[in-house]
Amino acid sequence: MTRQARLGENQYGKAEIRVMKVDRDRPRHVLHDLTVGVALAGDLAAVHLAGDNSAVLPTDTQKNTVYAFAREHGVDQIEDFATLLAKHFVDTQEAVHRATVTVDEHGWERLADHTFARSGRETRTAGVTHDADGTRVCSGLRDLVLLSSTGSEFQGFATDAYTTLPETDDRILCTSVEARWRHAEPQTDWRASYDAVRSALTNAFADTYSRSLQQTLYAMGARVVSTCHGVAEVRLRLPNRHHLLVDLEPFALENPGEVFHVDDRPYGLIEGTVLADGATADDGTW
Amino acid sequence: MTRQARLGENQYGKAEIRVMKVDRDRPRHVLHDLTVGVALAGDLAAVHLAGDNSAVLPTDTQKNTVYAFAREHGVDQIEDFATLLAKHFVDTQEAVHRATVTVDEHGWERLADHTFARSGRETRTAGVTHDADGTRVCSGLRDLVLLSSTGSEFQGFATDAYTTLPETDDRILCTSVEARWRHAEPQTDWRASYDAVRSALTNAFADTYSRSLQQTLYAMGARVVSTCHGVAEVRLRLPNRHHLLVDLEPFALENPGEVFHVDDRPYGLIEGTVLADGATADDGTW
Amino acid sequence: MTRQARLGENQYGKAEIRVMKVDRDRPRHVLHDLTVGVALAGDLAAVHLAGDNSAVLPTDTQKNTVYAFAREHGVDQIEDFATLLAKHFVDTQEAVHRATVTVDEHGWERLADHTFARSGRETRTAGVTHDADGTRVCSGLRDLVLLSSTGSEFQGFATDAYTTLPETDDRILCTSVEARWRHAEPQTDWRASYDAVRSALTNAFADTYSRSLQQTLYAMGARVVSTCHGVAEVRLRLPNRHHLLVDLEPFALENPGEVFHVDDRPYGLIEGTVLADGATADDGTW
Amino acid sequence: MTRQARLGENQYGKAEIRVMKVDRDRPRHVLHDLTVGVALAGDLAAVHLAGDNSAVLPTDTQKNTVYAFAREHGVDQIEDFATLLAKHFVDTQEAVHRATVTVDEHGWERLADHTFARSGRETRTAGVTHDADGTRVCSGLRDLVLLSSTGSEFQGFATDAYTTLPETDDRILCTSVEARWRHAEPQTDWRASYDAVRSALTNAFADTYSRSLQQTLYAMGARVVSTCHGVAEVRLRLPNRHHLLVDLEPFALENPGEVFHVDDRPYGLIEGTVLADGATADDGTW
Repeated sequence: MTRQARLGENQYGKAEIRVMKVDRDRPRHVLHDLTVGVALAGDLAAVHLAGDNSAVLPTDTQKNTVYAFAREHGVDQIEDFATLLAKHFVDTQEAVHRATVTVDEHGWERLADHTFARSGRETRTAGVTHDADGTRVCSGLRDLVLLSSTGSEFQGFATDAYTTLPETDDRILCTSVEARWRHAEPQTDWRASYDAVRSALTNAFADTYSRSLQQTLYAMGARVVSTCHGVAEVRLRLPNRHHLLVDLEPFALENPGEVFHVDDRPYGLIEGTVLADGATADDGTW
Repeated sequence: MTRQARLGENQYGKAEIRVMKVDRDRPRHVLHDLTVGVALAGDLAAVHLAGDNSAVLPTDTQKNTVYAFAREHGVDQIEDFATLLAKHFVDTQEAVHRATVTVDEHGWERLADHTFARSGRETRTAGVTHDADGTRVCSGLRDLVLLSSTGSEFQGFATDAYTTLPETDDRILCTSVEARWRHAEPQTDWRASYDAVRSALTNAFADTYSRSLQQTLYAMGARVVSTCHGVAEVRLRLPNRHHLLVDLEPFALENPGEVFHVDDRPYGLIEGTVLADGATADDGTW
Repeated sequence: MTRQARLGENQYGKAEIRVMKVDRDRPRHVLHDLTVGVALAGDLAAVHLAGDNSAVLPTDTQKNTVYAFAREHGVDQIEDFATLLAKHFVDTQEAVHRATVTVDEHGWERLADHTFARSGRETRTAGVTHDADGTRVCSGLRDLVLLSSTGSEFQGFATDAYTTLPETDDRILCTSVEARWRHAEPQTDWRASYDAVRSALTNAFADTYSRSLQQTLYAMGARVVSTCHGVAEVRLRLPNRHHLLVDLEPFALENPGEVFHVDDRPYGLIEGTVLADGATADDGTW
Repeated sequence: MTRQARLGENQYGKAEIRVMKVDRDRPRHVLHDLTVGVALAGDLAAVHLAGDNSAVLPTDTQKNTVYAFAREHGVDQIEDFATLLAKHFVDTQEAVHRATVTVDEHGWERLADHTFARSGRETRTAGVTHDADGTRVCSGLRDLVLLSSTGSEFQGFATDAYTTLPETDDRILCTSVEARWRHAEPQTDWRASYDAVRSALTNAFADTYSRSLQQTLYAMGARVVSTCHGVAEVRLRLPNRHHLLVDLEPFALENPGEVFHVDDRPYGLIEGTVLADGATADDGTW
């Protein structure tokens, strides 16, 4: 005898749409190199239960829409582009009640009027969700790799029978920052806001004498919400990229913080949220 | 003037601990090839706000614990191993209120008594969270790539001004299954349960004439919750690995479903949850 | 004052053409999942020096040819398919004097008549070069991960002032085999030849009590050339996937070869060629 | 009856040694973030044929040597560091007749005296081979992604029955440069030489109106050998990262070079060597 099943939460869409938009209507071209994702939710019971596709806008159409909107509306700010797309799907498809659009922007440096080199620095990100409750915009970045060669210690920690780690009063601290921040209200200039948050993150990282990566995380998040206008909350995910001091004693060499093995795995992973005072935590996934 | 900040949700731990445990106390060795992650939450305000590490059990200690527990307790079933570890951290560290332990198991095929080849099939996964509310166990798999060379259509879908996709009554359907399922109660034999769920997923995929990947997703999930004892809910994430029929007309060749370009990006992404009737949806992230 | 430049060796082509060919002319479908690369060399000075494209067959055309040949000729054996393509480009394009075609075949397991699961085992490879000197066929495999849980030691090695490694009389030996073998003459059944070589490699790995990975490499290669008909030479590339015994003494635990840390980097890398007696080494890159 | 086997070319070593060297003997720290590989060849028949390790310097020792040399000698210039290591192994191990050392250097930007951000630009590379014939030094780079948004055409190419590509007089040209160059003699300042070659490559890419990627490749290589002192030969490997103009006509939109799909696979791959006039081609692999 088998039990009955029922459908729970679901969504569908197109992931990793790779778009290059070139602004050519000016003496020096401008590049917008994006990876876009769309996810739609709504009245989708019939397709799951009966294979009735009448409410399913193909993911291929979603892709076409991204390309067409890039041409029609441009992509000056990724938060605006994501918002435009998210609203479009909800407003034009009766079955779609919620649309989430994510955009990654890959940076390029100008070498000449029409020539560029991929910058390889962090990726700027945006995520927008639109439904009957309104539009929620999240900005972010990832793969911003920061390192302090001194000014970091790790001491006075809890110990148990499985602890062998020695205390250290000077280590390399290195992390690859993934940050997302929620805006209390739309920004008038998303790029200026991005630059301000990025500076707050890197400055706090550089300024903070670190007793732990957790403390550095909080310092970074607090700097953002306290100095960046309109940012209500920032979520940080900081892998601890361990640089292990190599023991050179067998070779009759001292190693005063000079030579390190860069380890891949395992790695510490520190995750935390910092809120602006007065801001309400948003429990949703974003 | 700057605003105040406050700490929100946070956790920390060690990610991607790579452990190989060999059972040698038998004529033919047995391998357990695992990637383990630990994340702890609790009274961690002092470390974030003041760099006071007294409540921080080092992530290095967490790693040591995983190795030591593998030796002391073995790792026969990854769900049990994760549970043991999660309880250990909550039970022995006063500051730790919640522990989440994830385990990936990588498969090997036996070639001889002590010789093996990596199977390269899907990865089996487990995730266990333990706190004051109890222990929640989730099992899963990922990278199970399935393909049907016929018996799949996509027709009768919604269209708008951006739709160019033609309808098709015979296409390749290919996906890389990521599934996680929540147990209503602990299983007596986790491996047998895993095998049952895996069979339910592959059999439903093979049996279902597919009108859309959403329909196939629901059929797979419904098969699991209706036939696998004790599974309350299954979450599926199915990327649509597009196989695009190549137009061979310019070369005066027909192409009746024989030659396809395998496309990388973008790809459709279908996500959905199927619950056993009577089961309550668990809103948590797992 | 600047010096003059001149053109040296060069070639061009299309890389990573992803083709799925389905044989549908039988009750149970058969899959051929390939990644194909083409590289052409010949009279290409004009395009490099003057941008004169008249001798350049577009890489897009090369891609089309792969798809069309898959339809016209099928891809029963990847060595034959690569040979057909390589000859085609040399025979039909006057400017092309040498063509190299590589094919990777990705394995699938049958679940039902028209349903398959990606096997995830090793990738089978072929490389064919055709020019005025004839056709040279190389077969191969990669990502065949083998492990012995005992029967491997490493002792009596050379030491110097930088040596700290202790000797061991029992360790895990693990490698990811990359092998390519050159045929003295075309095989009548490439797949049977492949199966024979694969068996020779895995059997020799399993049979050999290993004093070093170099010894194991030679044993594997010697088994191939001495037992597999028509194989003149085999080149092996064996990364040593270090499994490091974890020191559990601090936790009052013995660890008699039971718990290992699986390390990613750095890794030993052993490369060697084994020839059939009487075979001439082929200095070319293949 | 089985045939005899004999050993051919072989080498062994340690790959992907990850070293971070911090110069701390100055007010502002300096980072050297390296990935080092060592490969040794010589009298290694005994280990292959009989498992006699007496001539085998462990790869673990090679790793230790890299760390110790970084401390003892610093790593100011990666070509010098690789040379020092290669000579060391040949000079101190009687069985070692040839040593090849490769070094990748990963760039960091300074944010403060002791704080850095990973630059993410190209990786600088060096490869040194030392044996009885002397020392051969090769410098290089990879993952330098360049793009021209105009000034590139592809017309007048060869066609056959499988050609469908239309001619274009304005396309995006994008490639990820991998370059290695051989020095006729040691440079006095390797970094200055590197900067000169990098500039020659990017300037030639930017300056050249491109009729094909082959032409651009030759222009880049010719610029290097004609303007960079002491560079005898440069080898370039240029994948053509196709940006495909999206057809927006179905949506009643023109697309005059504005919106592109960035395609992953397949891709054109253009490889070529450019020599300084008078330089002899070096047939070796480097």
